[in-house]
Amino acid sequence: MTRVHIYGASGYAAAEAVFLFAAHPEVELGALESASHAGEAIGAHFPRVRTLARAFDAPGSVLARVQSGDFVLLGGSHGTATKIAPEVLERGARVIDLSGDFRLAPSPAVYGFAERYRAQIAQADFVANPGCYPTATLLATLPLAVFGPGQIVVDAKSGVTGAGRTPSVSSLFSEVAGEIRAYGLEGHRHEPEIVQEWRAAGIEAPLVFTPQVVPIARGMLVNAYCILHSTPCEQAVRDAFVSAYADNPFVRVLDAGLVPSITAVNGTNDAEIHVSVKDNVVRAICAIDNLGRGAAAQAVRNFNIMYGYPEALGLGTVSNDKVTL
Amino acid sequence: MTRVHIYGASGYAAAEAVFLFAAHPEVELGALESASHAGEAIGAHFPRVRTLARAFDAPGSVLARVQSGDFVLLGGSHGTATKIAPEVLERGARVIDLSGDFRLAPSPAVYGFAERYRAQIAQADFVANPGCYPTATLLATLPLAVFGPGQIVVDAKSGVTGAGRTPSVSSLFSEVAGEIRAYGLEGHRHEPEIVQEWRAAGIEAPLVFTPQVVPIARGMLVNAYCILHSTPCEQAVRDAFVSAYADNPFVRVLDAGLVPSITAVNGTNDAEIHVSVKDNVVRAICAIDNLGRGAAAQAVRNFNIMYGYPEALGLGTVSNDKVTL
Amino acid sequence: MTRVHIYGASGYAAAEAVFLFAAHPEVELGALESASHAGEAIGAHFPRVRTLARAFDAPGSVLARVQSGDFVLLGGSHGTATKIAPEVLERGARVIDLSGDFRLAPSPAVYGFAERYRAQIAQADFVANPGCYPTATLLATLPLAVFGPGQIVVDAKSGVTGAGRTPSVSSLFSEVAGEIRAYGLEGHRHEPEIVQEWRAAGIEAPLVFTPQVVPIARGMLVNAYCILHSTPCEQAVRDAFVSAYADNPFVRVLDAGLVPSITAVNGTNDAEIHVSVKDNVVRAICAIDNLGRGAAAQAVRNFNIMYGYPEALGLGTVSNDKVTL
Amino acid sequence: MTRVHIYGASGYAAAEAVFLFAAHPEVELGALESASHAGEAIGAHFPRVRTLARAFDAPGSVLARVQSGDFVLLGGSHGTATKIAPEVLERGARVIDLSGDFRLAPSPAVYGFAERYRAQIAQADFVANPGCYPTATLLATLPLAVFGPGQIVVDAKSGVTGAGRTPSVSSLFSEVAGEIRAYGLEGHRHEPEIVQEWRAAGIEAPLVFTPQVVPIARGMLVNAYCILHSTPCEQAVRDAFVSAYADNPFVRVLDAGLVPSITAVNGTNDAEIHVSVKDNVVRAICAIDNLGRGAAAQAVRNFNIMYGYPEALGLGTVSNDKVTL
Repeated sequence: MTRVHIYGASGYAAAEAVFLFAAHPEVELGALESASHAGEAIGAHFPRVRTLARAFDAPGSVLARVQSGDFVLLGGSHGTATKIAPEVLERGARVIDLSGDFRLAPSPAVYGFAERYRAQIAQADFVANPGCYPTATLLATLPLAVFGPGQIVVDAKSGVTGAGRTPSVSSLFSEVAGEIRAYGLEGHRHEPEIVQEWRAAGIEAPLVFTPQVVPIARGMLVNAYCILHSTPCEQAVRDAFVSAYADNPFVRVLDAGLVPSITAVNGTNDAEIHVSVKDNVVRAICAIDNLGRGAAAQAVRNFNIMYGYPEALGLGTVSNDKVTL
Repeated sequence: MTRVHIYGASGYAAAEAVFLFAAHPEVELGALESASHAGEAIGAHFPRVRTLARAFDAPGSVLARVQSGDFVLLGGSHGTATKIAPEVLERGARVIDLSGDFRLAPSPAVYGFAERYRAQIAQADFVANPGCYPTATLLATLPLAVFGPGQIVVDAKSGVTGAGRTPSVSSLFSEVAGEIRAYGLEGHRHEPEIVQEWRAAGIEAPLVFTPQVVPIARGMLVNAYCILHSTPCEQAVRDAFVSAYADNPFVRVLDAGLVPSITAVNGTNDAEIHVSVKDNVVRAICAIDNLGRGAAAQAVRNFNIMYGYPEALGLGTVSNDKVTL
Repeated sequence: MTRVHIYGASGYAAAEAVFLFAAHPEVELGALESASHAGEAIGAHFPRVRTLARAFDAPGSVLARVQSGDFVLLGGSHGTATKIAPEVLERGARVIDLSGDFRLAPSPAVYGFAERYRAQIAQADFVANPGCYPTATLLATLPLAVFGPGQIVVDAKSGVTGAGRTPSVSSLFSEVAGEIRAYGLEGHRHEPEIVQEWRAAGIEAPLVFTPQVVPIARGMLVNAYCILHSTPCEQAVRDAFVSAYADNPFVRVLDAGLVPSITAVNGTNDAEIHVSVKDNVVRAICAIDNLGRGAAAQAVRNFNIMYGYPEALGLGTVSNDKVTL
Repeated sequence: MTRVHIYGASGYAAAEAVFLFAAHPEVELGALESASHAGEAIGAHFPRVRTLARAFDAPGSVLARVQSGDFVLLGGSHGTATKIAPEVLERGARVIDLSGDFRLAPSPAVYGFAERYRAQIAQADFVANPGCYPTATLLATLPLAVFGPGQIVVDAKSGVTGAGRTPSVSSLFSEVAGEIRAYGLEGHRHEPEIVQEWRAAGIEAPLVFTPQVVPIARGMLVNAYCILHSTPCEQAVRDAFVSAYADNPFVRVLDAGLVPSITAVNGTNDAEIHVSVKDNVVRAICAIDNLGRGAAAQAVRNFNIMYGYPEALGLGTVSNDKVTL
């Protein structure tokens, strides 16, 4: 049993973490701190956790309550973790940061992409949880390292929760409905994160990245077009994906003829991947939940790895013809 | 040809008015003033008027440019018209106010519901444009005055633009999608406006009013349940509606078996009304565009009446089997 | 451990039942029969159960495999249960029928509304699961029996899954988006079901019922306006609801100031209820998941009651500050 | 004044054409034929044309009524134009076919992409209207011919009306909501049409094309990634687009920093294009209305060209700061 505190608990990703940790059998909830909504009922903001019957704790609550051995999830906006992470680590707590503050090298944190860094995560006190776009992009492209792609184009679509819960005109219902809106075309902050991990895996291809907001609340679809120097065997490409994710209960490489479904992965740590070949281009399409696999559920998985709990605890597992939710 | 200035031009309703007036053959656009977005391209905010190639004018522009004979549309938030309306009227301009500031008696403005006050509007220098909920509710209930309803329940659904363009958590896409959210259950500011006009028309029934936000950007559906003291003849009820709106090109009383369509009235000044009887209850369902008939299009119609232009100019008309957009 | 067969398994409600039963710790899945999609992968139709790795079984599979002690869920369209239910019961299986075939008296089935008939359900071999509209309406109105309502108006909104998965123009995305569409205004098949249970509970009020399709996939909001003969004490009305649902983990009577949320109840057997008073009218607003509490989750609860399993098994329970999903 | 008959008038694109032609000042509506809905009120199917007060005409009506000099729009499903087009042409009518039957060479019809074939369209009796995906793709790529792209990846998103109005499970609201669903990954019928026109314009690049259905009713966004052999000057690329569409009132090449808006082009023949360069990749993003520029509005423009009417008649024009709707 581990005590879990959440800092910046009123954002969409952190609230999803509250939901998951509240149901985690080895977790006792500690402080749920929110600067903007301290004292307000969590269930008034996030009706899905109405039964929790808790209010957001006041600023300072996490630092006031955290003890050695506790776990702290940092869910504040980008920039705040730089200040609070060292203080929490000093108290002897372990930390996962949902923000982008510690993802790029050099960093004191381990990059929390368990598909590559499970061993390091297991030993870490401090983990930088990957961004949602990088998570889906890496899942869709890393198995292609052996094919030496020469150019990769990523056309990515994100649900609106990806833009956070701080009110802005561009996230209003009436601005998003009916539109597919590209943004960040001058360069998106997630690009260096993707490129860093590509380089680490031996992919040297330049990246063109187009993020887009789509009229869905949560979920993400990333289409990666990997241009190779010659036409590969489709079966060899498929085998590379299947073998990369063998024994990985969270990634489903779909049979030919099936396409990834966002609603199938929402609320989970799962990813669905389609892969096909057209001449010298590999098309890999990956669906994840931007708040789940792209944030809170990936954090819970990393938490499980850090504390030695079964990796899927609180996330659902799969065995034979039995779905455990 | 009349020069039209718009104050508070960056809200949803005022921007719809920009769109309509820009296409109005008897209108020359004057100042398009916005305190929050002065200097920014209108087309960057409202792509539908991208071809206008104008920026929002700075605060003070309307007062600086308005002249006798001009027309001013006040589109600012509730409360601001109280200050600016008298100044504009003093310059000899005529005014329509979209806000709720001057709708309730005693008021220096004529209530701009042309179905009842066309003659007064034609003589007015100052018109208070009705709210969207009252407009739909009055269209659905006034013809029933002769039946003396004893109680009226109004269950109303509004598109999210009804909440305005100022960012707030409750209007974010991710909060609205998938929900039908009641609000204002302690009493909504539109209730006194409805009751005032009911009293003026001889309807003394108490009102229960439930406004709800629905996951659509624009449009409104108002279901009015009018409980009579005895069971009326359905044909008599229908006749009352048909005769109330005979020769009114903006209201369609639907044949039995048809139901009002929001997308059919969006972008127009039209209303569609279903009416049926179950025992002693008359059910009248009215669809309007909250930004059109409920705001900007109704304002354009009132403007046409005030200046003696054909009532439907710039709003589309209907003749025989010919739709003029 | 009980073996569960599902007939008509490719509809929305039955597929939701597949999802729930697949995760139920006391259930072994038997035949999942579909006439229209036999042999096709369930996960291709319902990606959320992709991990189940099963195909729909051929017509006749349920009858071929069912044995004494088994459980059969009938999910076919209205009319088919009349034929298959007796055959299945003859084999010694217990049955819940999702259709409307056996809900109205006289019927060999117990009406599966556990809030009133838990004892009878526990003894039953054959249960008629309530419709989604009646479920929400009854939850919102039955506690008012003691106040003797004289008239009840129900304005109801349903997600599009309520119209089933058989293709029809009226359920196409492009017909539903942007609309709130009333239907069944000549009389809806759910009205007699509501009135039957009202009469059983002592409510004699006439019903005006307006079903509407809203642009959401799942979930339902029912607004009941109960017109009393005199003005009640709001606290007494609230107390009636609170006491009616005390110790009922599936119904949340919300504090004043909160409104029901559809996304908070989707995927669950929960209901959220707002209740308030305006003069002599009680306004009760109830949110449920039309596929969950209105169909599959209510069936799982009834199944648990029939077999003596904990009532919330497979449905989530609530204890202290711990959410068990 | 030209008499216009529409065959297959109950599909989404044909109904949009009814809407446009009904408001066209030089058009008299003739037969509006529908095999599936003959005799039913058009306004019951398409409330936006409720004021037309017409029913769909019976099968055979177009052939029965068409005369020399008339115009016929063929809106039936793919395959039917092969039969009816020759018969109509024989009567001396001119024809535009919305289907894909006559788009690929060799064909008796002129390909109705006015940006390239205006002169031929003006002389033609028979025009094959381009598909929606090809229209947007060609607008986004043809100006790049001079740069000799080596590879083009097209990631395309279409509103659900693109799948037609014939009921199918995959177009149901509950299947589309919340999803971005790729399809046609084995090869889409629009690819040869795109490649044919690329070849005609001197673009020899291989195409990877990914069509996707998105949860919007109408509108389309096409992202074309054109991989050049070397890095171009961004200004030269932009100049190529600006000069290609100079004096074209229907195409807006957006200033840097603006992105195409679907709602800005819906209901029109307009296109909005963003173009930018990242290394050797040109990213061109084009928004059109799949039912407007991608079907009916493009057909009206072609009709205007064929009959010598002003090109934008019935489609809105733009002059100075005046929007004519």
